[in-house]
Amino acid sequence: MSSKESNGRWLIRSYPQGEISVDNFEFRREPVPEPADGEVLVKTPHLIVSPPLRMALGTGGIAGSPLPIGSLMRGTGQGRVVVSRHRDFREGDYVSGPFGWQEYAVSDGVRRIPLKKESPRGDLPLSANLHVLGAGGATAFVGLYDIAKPCIGDVVVISAAAGNVGSIVCQLARQSGCRVVGIAGSDEKCRWLTQDLGIDAAINYKREAVAERLREVCPSGIDIYFDNVGGETLDAALALINPAARVVLCGATSQYEGDARWYGPRNYFNLVYKQATMQGFYIFNFQHRFEAAFTRLAALIRRGELSYAEDVLNGVESLPAALVRGLNGENFGTQLVNLDSAGATA
Amino acid sequence: MSSKESNGRWLIRSYPQGEISVDNFEFRREPVPEPADGEVLVKTPHLIVSPPLRMALGTGGIAGSPLPIGSLMRGTGQGRVVVSRHRDFREGDYVSGPFGWQEYAVSDGVRRIPLKKESPRGDLPLSANLHVLGAGGATAFVGLYDIAKPCIGDVVVISAAAGNVGSIVCQLARQSGCRVVGIAGSDEKCRWLTQDLGIDAAINYKREAVAERLREVCPSGIDIYFDNVGGETLDAALALINPAARVVLCGATSQYEGDARWYGPRNYFNLVYKQATMQGFYIFNFQHRFEAAFTRLAALIRRGELSYAEDVLNGVESLPAALVRGLNGENFGTQLVNLDSAGATA
Repeated sequence: MSSKESNGRWLIRSYPQGEISVDNFEFRREPVPEPADGEVLVKTPHLIVSPPLRMALGTGGIAGSPLPIGSLMRGTGQGRVVVSRHRDFREGDYVSGPFGWQEYAVSDGVRRIPLKKESPRGDLPLSANLHVLGAGGATAFVGLYDIAKPCIGDVVVISAAAGNVGSIVCQLARQSGCRVVGIAGSDEKCRWLTQDLGIDAAINYKREAVAERLREVCPSGIDIYFDNVGGETLDAALALINPAARVVLCGATSQYEGDARWYGPRNYFNLVYKQATMQGFYIFNFQHRFEAAFTRLAALIRRGELSYAEDVLNGVESLPAALVRGLNGENFGTQLVNLDSAGATA
Repeated sequence: MSSKESNGRWLIRSYPQGEISVDNFEFRREPVPEPADGEVLVKTPHLIVSPPLRMALGTGGIAGSPLPIGSLMRGTGQGRVVVSRHRDFREGDYVSGPFGWQEYAVSDGVRRIPLKKESPRGDLPLSANLHVLGAGGATAFVGLYDIAKPCIGDVVVISAAAGNVGSIVCQLARQSGCRVVGIAGSDEKCRWLTQDLGIDAAINYKREAVAERLREVCPSGIDIYFDNVGGETLDAALALINPAARVVLCGATSQYEGDARWYGPRNYFNLVYKQATMQGFYIFNFQHRFEAAFTRLAALIRRGELSYAEDVLNGVESLPAALVRGLNGENFGTQLVNLDSAGATA
C-alpha cells in the first residue's frame, strides 16, 4: 500500500425527497485506516450496487430506519486483505462483506464488518461471488426451488427478469420444464431473455401494457409469479394466478423510491379464490442451502447452461450514479462498480 | 301444502352505488312451483345471510360477474322436502342447498339447486348445520388447522372475531394453547369473546385505534392472523407479524361494499422481512375434511367446550335488512332468517 493512497468514501448527505440523486451523497477522501491488533485492512475491488440499497435513505427496509445522515453508505463487496493483524486472516485472502461505499475497510472479522472468506472457484471469475455465486444466486435458487417449488409445465412469470436474481430464475425455471415469461425494461433485455437465455416470452414494461400482454402470453394463467418489483405489476400477475399458484415475494424495485406507504396489491383476494399462496423469504435464513446453490450454479455455468451479465462502472466516484442507474433499470446485467479502475494495485 | 300459500321471493332490482340498501331488491309473491318428474319441492325454514353475498350485486366475487338484474338473489339455506317426485328424496327429508332468497324451491337434486341430504345430529339444533356444523365451521376448522397450523404459545389475532367463522377460530385457537386476540365491532361482542369464549383480549374496532391497540395487546408480535375483514385491519396486522407468521385470508368484509378496486395491503412486503406466508383457501376444495370438522365441532358443543350465537330475523320480508345488518356488523352471532316465522307449517 502506497503512503500516497487515500480512502475514497461516500457518506449520506441528505435524504431524497422523491427520487434519489447523486446529490444525496457526499464524497470524501480520508487517510487509509490502520488496522489495530486483531484487525485486518481490506481493499475492495468490487461492490455490487442493487436497488434495495435505496431503502437505506428511506424506510430503512428490514432495519426499520434509515442510515443516519453523515454515515457511510451501505454496500456489499469483495476484497483482499492487504494488512492482517488478525490470526485467522492472511494478506492476500479474498473476503466478502458489508464494506460500505469505500475503497478500504478495517474489520475485526466478526463484529465490525463481518467478513466471509471466499472459497473462490478458481475457474470462474471472482466477481461472480457477488451475484450468481453470492446472495443473488442463492436468492434465485431458494426462491424458486424451496419457495415456489416448480412443476413441469408450470407457467412461471418473473419480473425484473433481466436482473441479477431474475435472470437466474428464468434459466432455472426453464430447466425445470416450465413455460417462462419475463418482464424487463428494454427491448435489448427482452431479446437477451428470449434469444440468449431461451425463455418463452418477454414483455417490455416500459413500452407495453403489462396486464394486457400478460393475458396474451399466459392464456392458461400463471402458476408461479416471482416478484422483484411490486406495484401494478404484482397486481397484474395476481389477476391471472391459477389455482394453487405460488406468488414469491423477493423484491419491490418499483417501490423503493416511494415514501413509507407502499402500493398495496388490490388483487390480493384472488389468493382466496384461487387458494393460492403469497410468500416472502429472507435469504440469510437459508444459509444451509448456500453451498448446494453455489455448487449447482457453478456447475451450470461450467457446462454453458447458465449465463449471466455484468454491468460494470469504473471508479469509486461512480457509486451514486450506479445506484440511480439501477433504480431506473438502465443497467444491463448485475450492476457492479470496480473501485480499482483508477489503477491502484489490488 | 295449502293451496292458499304463495312463494315469497326477492329479486335483484338494481346494483347499489356505494352501500347496499333494501331498495336494491324487489319482493314478489308467486305461486308455489310444482315439481315435475325427477324433481322435489323444498320449503326453506332457514337461510344464512352472510356479508360475501354483497358481491352478488357487485364484483361477483369468485363468479367474476354480478347476478343479472331481475334474477333471484343468491342464498344458502336448509329446508324440508315437501313434495318429492325424485327417487332419491322422500317427503320430510332435511336438505341444504343454494335455494336463493325464496320460501320454496324446486330442484332436480343435482344440477338445478344441488341438494345435500343432511345427516342431522339429532341432539343438536338443525340450524347449526347452517353455520358451526356447515360451511362456517368447516372454514374455521380448515383455515386454522390446515392452513394456519397453530403451535402452542402462538399469538393468534382474528378479525370479525364474533362472527360465524371468527368465533369458532377464537375457541379452537385457545384450545390449541394459543394466546388469542379478537377484533370485533361492539363492546358487547368483545365481552362475549373474553368473558364467555375465554379469549385473552378483544379490540372494539369501532371505538379503538386498531393498529395501536394491537401493538399494546401483542407486545411480542403476531404469529397467526386470521383475516375476515381486509382493509386497514389487514395492514395493521401485517405490520406486527413475527418471523414465519401465517396470514390466513378468509374474508374481506370491509371491502365487499367497495367498487372493483379493493384496498391493497401496503404492508405486504413485511412478508419478505419476516419470511411469512399469506395464504387463501376456498373451503369447497376441502370437502374431504368436512366430516372430520363436523364430528369434532359437534363433540365440542356437546361437551360445552364450543359456544356459538345466532341472530335470527323473522319472515322472508326481512332478508334484505338482514344483509345490510350483517354488512354493518349490527348482528350478534350468525345472521339467520327464519322464513317460517309467519306461521306456515314446516
